[in-house]
Amino acid sequence: MRLGAGQPVLRADAAGSDDVRRANLSAVLRRLHFDGATSRSDIVLATGFNRSTVGSLTSELERAGLVRERPGAVRGKGRPSNVVVPVSTSVYVLAFDVTTSGVAAALVGLGGYMLQVRRRLHRTSPHEAAAVVALVTGLAAEMQARAPVGALCLGLAVSVPGSVRQPDGLVRRSPHLGWHDVPFAAMLRTATHGELPVVVGNDGDLGAVAEHLRGAARGEHDVLYVRGEVGVGGGVVIDGELLKGAGGYAGEVGHLVVKPGGRLCSCGARGCWEAEIGDGAIIRAVGRDPRESDIEDVISDVAAGNRRALAGVRRTGEWVGVGLASLVNLFNPSVVVLGGSLGALYPTMEPTLQVAIARALGPGREQARLVRSTLGSDAQLVGGAEVAFADLLDDPLGTLAGLDGPAGNVVAVCEA
Amino acid sequence: MRLGAGQPVLRADAAGSDDVRRANLSAVLRRLHFDGATSRSDIVLATGFNRSTVGSLTSELERAGLVRERPGAVRGKGRPSNVVVPVSTSVYVLAFDVTTSGVAAALVGLGGYMLQVRRRLHRTSPHEAAAVVALVTGLAAEMQARAPVGALCLGLAVSVPGSVRQPDGLVRRSPHLGWHDVPFAAMLRTATHGELPVVVGNDGDLGAVAEHLRGAARGEHDVLYVRGEVGVGGGVVIDGELLKGAGGYAGEVGHLVVKPGGRLCSCGARGCWEAEIGDGAIIRAVGRDPRESDIEDVISDVAAGNRRALAGVRRTGEWVGVGLASLVNLFNPSVVVLGGSLGALYPTMEPTLQVAIARALGPGREQARLVRSTLGSDAQLVGGAEVAFADLLDDPLGTLAGLDGPAGNVVAVCEA
Repeated sequence: MRLGAGQPVLRADAAGSDDVRRANLSAVLRRLHFDGATSRSDIVLATGFNRSTVGSLTSELERAGLVRERPGAVRGKGRPSNVVVPVSTSVYVLAFDVTTSGVAAALVGLGGYMLQVRRRLHRTSPHEAAAVVALVTGLAAEMQARAPVGALCLGLAVSVPGSVRQPDGLVRRSPHLGWHDVPFAAMLRTATHGELPVVVGNDGDLGAVAEHLRGAARGEHDVLYVRGEVGVGGGVVIDGELLKGAGGYAGEVGHLVVKPGGRLCSCGARGCWEAEIGDGAIIRAVGRDPRESDIEDVISDVAAGNRRALAGVRRTGEWVGVGLASLVNLFNPSVVVLGGSLGALYPTMEPTLQVAIARALGPGREQARLVRSTLGSDAQLVGGAEVAFADLLDDPLGTLAGLDGPAGNVVAVCEA
Repeated sequence: MRLGAGQPVLRADAAGSDDVRRANLSAVLRRLHFDGATSRSDIVLATGFNRSTVGSLTSELERAGLVRERPGAVRGKGRPSNVVVPVSTSVYVLAFDVTTSGVAAALVGLGGYMLQVRRRLHRTSPHEAAAVVALVTGLAAEMQARAPVGALCLGLAVSVPGSVRQPDGLVRRSPHLGWHDVPFAAMLRTATHGELPVVVGNDGDLGAVAEHLRGAARGEHDVLYVRGEVGVGGGVVIDGELLKGAGGYAGEVGHLVVKPGGRLCSCGARGCWEAEIGDGAIIRAVGRDPRESDIEDVISDVAAGNRRALAGVRRTGEWVGVGLASLVNLFNPSVVVLGGSLGALYPTMEPTLQVAIARALGPGREQARLVRSTLGSDAQLVGGAEVAFADLLDDPLGTLAGLDGPAGNVVAVCEA
């Protein structure tokens, strides 16, 4: 999957070929999805297609119901260029973020608009995968019942904090959910009668996709994303592509060993980054008991200016920095995005982290801008939604044609 | 740069387009360059082109002097298929490996044949970049004087142990050479009168390219390569592409911090992997003095079964393992290739390393096969040569047309 709007575009010169037509429709819809309403003349400028090609492409997308055109404002002399708008109620995806505490869900329309957002706590232990499946499909049904009339569902994407095998969505291990070889995507497909594409992804990977496409790293091609939570997840975008590795497990930044012989990690090793900077470590560092307090307590203490909390967070920041320096040397990112609890505590850690980044090699550190997530706890939903939209953006008409039911009809096939 | 032979191939169906013709010529020449002599019918099978297309492509390459055809052996009934052979003396590149001790050089013909190899020690300190330029260009002239008659030189590629900015080949830092912001590629271009393309690459990156295309990781798409030397270099191939990062500095595995507060590293930080497992660390671990001994002494001691040496190398292997476990979690490679002194000492370290890899997360470690470099100290020359051949393989006839002098003439433009 190529992410984002920077695709190489096939020219219409060799017209007549279906491939070229598909690629051109893709280029236009992708731009509208990420940039929102755009005048035809700006589409001409951005794609390099001529005016009549753009007109024919947007008309075709309009006939499919994916965009509509409205007259642009009159500026100066000459006829104003029509403005093309993605129709957020034409197609949508359902995105879910499974964490140790519960499930967040969003119905996201074309153009990336979050039309509904819901959050639900686990009623039983998250260890029971079947209960999590029920929670997800229940939320899917609720959201679909209130989906825009006539809108088509393209699929589900679910974020989990664990190692996910691709493309089949088997969760190989998630120590925090207590899952081992759980065929989560297959279970979700069964529960939704196999009627929709289901994608399951790692939370760090989806966060990286989100920040790259719509967040703090928008426009950057080399991105490192780190999410602090009970565990520490991460994802890496390299030259605009998500780093996957041989089995889809790459980017496990939480298990970088920063302190040999250090704290016991959920993975069984000692001194993993996760064990030193995960929520539990931060809670202990501020002098609280992880069995009685959670990370929200720490965030409140810090906001209130509690000196012990500030000192503890800064001390943890030093270990955050040790890992970041290594990662900057390995990935040479142009931007490092901190999310989750690390994003929330970023203002307190920032001076410590800047010192730590300065320990990385000169050439790499000069480029590594350190920023806080702008998507916060929505990052996994946003990233999942983009993965679920990917097929439509690659082949707009072909993907619509492949769905059950004709475009424009109510299709509530997600219902459990 | 897409590496290797696994390109997507454009079909000739839409023939007439120059792009398609170029891509098809590229596909055929690439296969011959990497696989050597291949029958026409095997080319048909491998590319999916029809017989007459393959015949026309190989004839065109033959007219350009890059390949020749000879009758195949008669097997069973029917006319034997012609065998197409890359002509190693048609075009060549000059590859160099600059280390702290000296410069290795090779003249490499089409097909990857090393037609000449030379090694020279630095006569002055390698800190003097101008002296290194003179050594490289002197070796270039020597090799060119004995180049095959009529062969065309495509360019120079030079490996250095340092951070190299791309695409301009400025060496940002190389603590071991004592270089800081040395415009090495520009200096080489000036010394060769600007007549040839010059590429300067990081030693770890070029080693990774080499092992991926022609060495221990051939056929693998996700490769981690680590080279032990005075410093520790590395390179990562992700889905068949070299990991570069925002500025071309990615893959600096030597500066992964494995032991906070550990030994002082050449980069100024403490406890970098390089400081704990580089040649100096190994020499100390076996009880020798790095000022009096070099890594060859350690390798001899180990070969002789010296118990102190064996124990020291195994102890160092534990630190090698700490870093490898982290890297396996980050990159999820299908194969990890150890080269340089780590390759030479691999048999002694291997049991320790396998235990360490087992500490990585389950899913990633299951895929990470640990192997010893098969290219050894030639890896940087082989990798550099492939980078220098890349343009020809992408566009065989266009690249030839862009060279000074007609194909088939003696062109000794590399001469300093």
